[in-house]
Amino acid sequence: MIQMKEIYGQLLAIYKEIQVVEQISMLLGWDQEVLMPKKGLIQRSEQQGYLAGLNHKVSTDPKIGELLKVIKKHEDYDKLSEIEKRNIYLIQREYNKAIKLPEDFVVEYTKIAVMAVEAWKEARAENDFSKFQPSLEKVFEMAKRYANYINPDIPPYEVLLDEFEPGMSSEKYTAIFTPLKEATVELIKKCKEAPTQPNTSLIYRKVPLDIQDKLSKDLVSLINFSMEKGRIDVSTHPFTTGAYDDVRITTRYQEEDFTSSFFSVMHEGGHGCYEQNQAEGWKYQPVGKYCSLGLHESQSRFYENTLGRSKSFWFYYLDRFKKLTGDIFSDVQYTDFIRAINTVEPSMIRVEADEVTYNLHIILRFEIERDLFAGKIEIKDLPRIWKDRMKDMLGIEVKKDSDGVLQDIHWSGGTFGYFPTYSLGNVYAAQFFNKLTKDIPDWNTKLESGDVSSILDWMKTNIQEKGNLYNAPELVKIVTGEYPTPQYLIDFLKEKYAVLYGF
Amino acid sequence: MIQMKEIYGQLLAIYKEIQVVEQISMLLGWDQEVLMPKKGLIQRSEQQGYLAGLNHKVSTDPKIGELLKVIKKHEDYDKLSEIEKRNIYLIQREYNKAIKLPEDFVVEYTKIAVMAVEAWKEARAENDFSKFQPSLEKVFEMAKRYANYINPDIPPYEVLLDEFEPGMSSEKYTAIFTPLKEATVELIKKCKEAPTQPNTSLIYRKVPLDIQDKLSKDLVSLINFSMEKGRIDVSTHPFTTGAYDDVRITTRYQEEDFTSSFFSVMHEGGHGCYEQNQAEGWKYQPVGKYCSLGLHESQSRFYENTLGRSKSFWFYYLDRFKKLTGDIFSDVQYTDFIRAINTVEPSMIRVEADEVTYNLHIILRFEIERDLFAGKIEIKDLPRIWKDRMKDMLGIEVKKDSDGVLQDIHWSGGTFGYFPTYSLGNVYAAQFFNKLTKDIPDWNTKLESGDVSSILDWMKTNIQEKGNLYNAPELVKIVTGEYPTPQYLIDFLKEKYAVLYGF
Repeated sequence: MIQMKEIYGQLLAIYKEIQVVEQISMLLGWDQEVLMPKKGLIQRSEQQGYLAGLNHKVSTDPKIGELLKVIKKHEDYDKLSEIEKRNIYLIQREYNKAIKLPEDFVVEYTKIAVMAVEAWKEARAENDFSKFQPSLEKVFEMAKRYANYINPDIPPYEVLLDEFEPGMSSEKYTAIFTPLKEATVELIKKCKEAPTQPNTSLIYRKVPLDIQDKLSKDLVSLINFSMEKGRIDVSTHPFTTGAYDDVRITTRYQEEDFTSSFFSVMHEGGHGCYEQNQAEGWKYQPVGKYCSLGLHESQSRFYENTLGRSKSFWFYYLDRFKKLTGDIFSDVQYTDFIRAINTVEPSMIRVEADEVTYNLHIILRFEIERDLFAGKIEIKDLPRIWKDRMKDMLGIEVKKDSDGVLQDIHWSGGTFGYFPTYSLGNVYAAQFFNKLTKDIPDWNTKLESGDVSSILDWMKTNIQEKGNLYNAPELVKIVTGEYPTPQYLIDFLKEKYAVLYGF
Repeated sequence: MIQMKEIYGQLLAIYKEIQVVEQISMLLGWDQEVLMPKKGLIQRSEQQGYLAGLNHKVSTDPKIGELLKVIKKHEDYDKLSEIEKRNIYLIQREYNKAIKLPEDFVVEYTKIAVMAVEAWKEARAENDFSKFQPSLEKVFEMAKRYANYINPDIPPYEVLLDEFEPGMSSEKYTAIFTPLKEATVELIKKCKEAPTQPNTSLIYRKVPLDIQDKLSKDLVSLINFSMEKGRIDVSTHPFTTGAYDDVRITTRYQEEDFTSSFFSVMHEGGHGCYEQNQAEGWKYQPVGKYCSLGLHESQSRFYENTLGRSKSFWFYYLDRFKKLTGDIFSDVQYTDFIRAINTVEPSMIRVEADEVTYNLHIILRFEIERDLFAGKIEIKDLPRIWKDRMKDMLGIEVKKDSDGVLQDIHWSGGTFGYFPTYSLGNVYAAQFFNKLTKDIPDWNTKLESGDVSSILDWMKTNIQEKGNLYNAPELVKIVTGEYPTPQYLIDFLKEKYAVLYGF
């Protein structure tokens, strides 16, 4: 037994080394986005390049493979706990992935992706898809090759979907997205036809940045994002990085739109709390990391939307909000305010979309990816296809490709199969919330009296502290009793917006 | 020839790797001092520990030794340029040092030093030397062992002095410090006896921190510290870190004493410019790094004192200063102001000492170190010896050890032989300045009209861009025609203070 524990210990030690290198790299990345001097870029690239090489070297150390082989054949293997076995499984999973990619290929892919990102920037700035098309075609081919290296036995898109969200497939996504799409289109129609529409001018008022900053600080404290284990700063695009006791979130401020920062802080705060709340005893172990992208997104979406745009939360928070913002919103009524921050309005840009229409943006991207990989459509036709489908799904005329197919950075970096995890996050969040309301029947009374912690503690105990002990769909099943289903999200949205729009 | 160039290239590549690791470590250190969340400390220690191990591994790679052996025996070795040979020499020097220290010893020394620093903190806080004495004794033994590993053939203190300032020895330091001490004691006496004393109340006025911050920004711009290649932030103790295109300096603000931050910015700005101004073509090469600690200090002292406390600089800057600070100093006269910021006043604390008395603080420490290593005095007697010598040299009664032998962190970390480089920096600075005034005869007219760049360009071209092409004493000889001598510093101080104090 001692011998096996020793092998197990060695595996965890190597895994920890990889985590430490990743943490260092994350800090460098954070610094780059938040405060690095302009001309430090090349120097920083050298540092990040070095760390990437180091990461590759440690991750593909043949010793990992040998230790895994020995431990799995060990006579005492069955005596390992569920957690220990999961750790071994996850180390094996990451190791397999790491060694399957030839280094030449990784270097080539990285170069092509870096150039494609540049081409995308130019194309978007000049609203000219043709400048991006050749690069996108190359990246697309590389993504397929990547998938083939990982697993040549199943179709590339399936490999990629499983990469970003272990346990998922296009079939499962389709099963979730088809009813969600249908229900969403109907819901949008109902909102549009409702006799009284929200008055958004109520919220677009000038709020000085120092007041918005105070709001940010108030919010992170409210959601128990620890400032002793993290920071909040400003960057062009909000993001979250770091792990455990040093987690950093960012926001951005627009003077005429406090919601931009407000809901960014709630969103990134959700990501941040998930990282901070990993189980203390699992630090640096595979089980002590976030479960999946979809699960991560379920947390950010839960904090931002399920909680942050809820009637119960604002029943409590509006007074506090009014106090913190001085006279600016003193005339605003609770009901009008709630309706204004929950306005449903089809729009062109995904990242600006509301809680309801957002999923259609994702489903559109998922369907395009699926059709691309199936060979049903071609990259050169994407601008047209994008416009047609936006018209069909959201009833919107996309005039410029920069507001259409060129709006997101993801594909230029080769991340096909990532988008679906965003909506999956919404699905998970709603399913968790449904269970939460059963476990805490008086959740709304609590929230209305300012007790946010009870709800977040439920999330911490049931989801966040579970780390990567199960694949996300399994965790959802264990916590809620059912595998991921869109029904809870559909019901949640239908009920919420029926009340808000009065239909 | 190609073959040798290839070996040379391989050596530089490994050296670059070490530099990249050091840069990463410096950024992590900066972040820790400036903005890391409180509870991130353990995580950060893991990261820094990992990088230290990595640094050791890369620095002691036997391949370096093999490549050095091959290149030195190569038939084309003599065809290498002076710069290339210097690079090889410096790589050899650092490699020798790295491989001479057994890893066990390094680990043990680090642990003892970390604990000694903690003991020192406690002892200083409680003003109780006995709490520090056992740790200091251990650290002192380790420092001697360290020196023996590096070079067992010469006395330990000589090894350490040469480590911190290649080319220096206790004999050379004594030759410099003896006349400097004598002249300084006399100068202090004269200042004390001068009939009119400066009125320091002129400068100790409340200056709001936002104004002090504006002053900092103005200063860095004035001395050409590039904000595109650096940052200025706030930390408990001012420091400089980073290299080339990402150099970061810090300061600290005291509302009632603008000089604290003002001269910190000038001082750290000098260090910072030295790093930023390394020759572009030598990046990541041994010659493209700072020359020595003394040389680094010569730059910070030059910016802070030679320039920043000069009559000519303030002839120009006082008006600008008055404008930037609003009404606060509008009544202050130029002559009174200059005298106030150049007040000579023996005091207990080194880091608060003025330009004249400062060197006595250093010489006191040098003499104690020298006597300790020579076995003439013992650690247990340091409090008494400190008090006696402070009385002798500065005429000051040290009442508390926390204001005496316990005031500096250096010895607790094992850095014996470091202090002398501080005063050597002053010596270099004065010697450079003397040459500068010959090369730019109208330097004072220039400075008085606000042309700071001409002077700093001289420093950039003659000193900063030379990096580590020569050991510091050699560089001083090449630039000024003489090896380091205290005479220029003595003359400079005598002349300056005779005018200011009117004797």
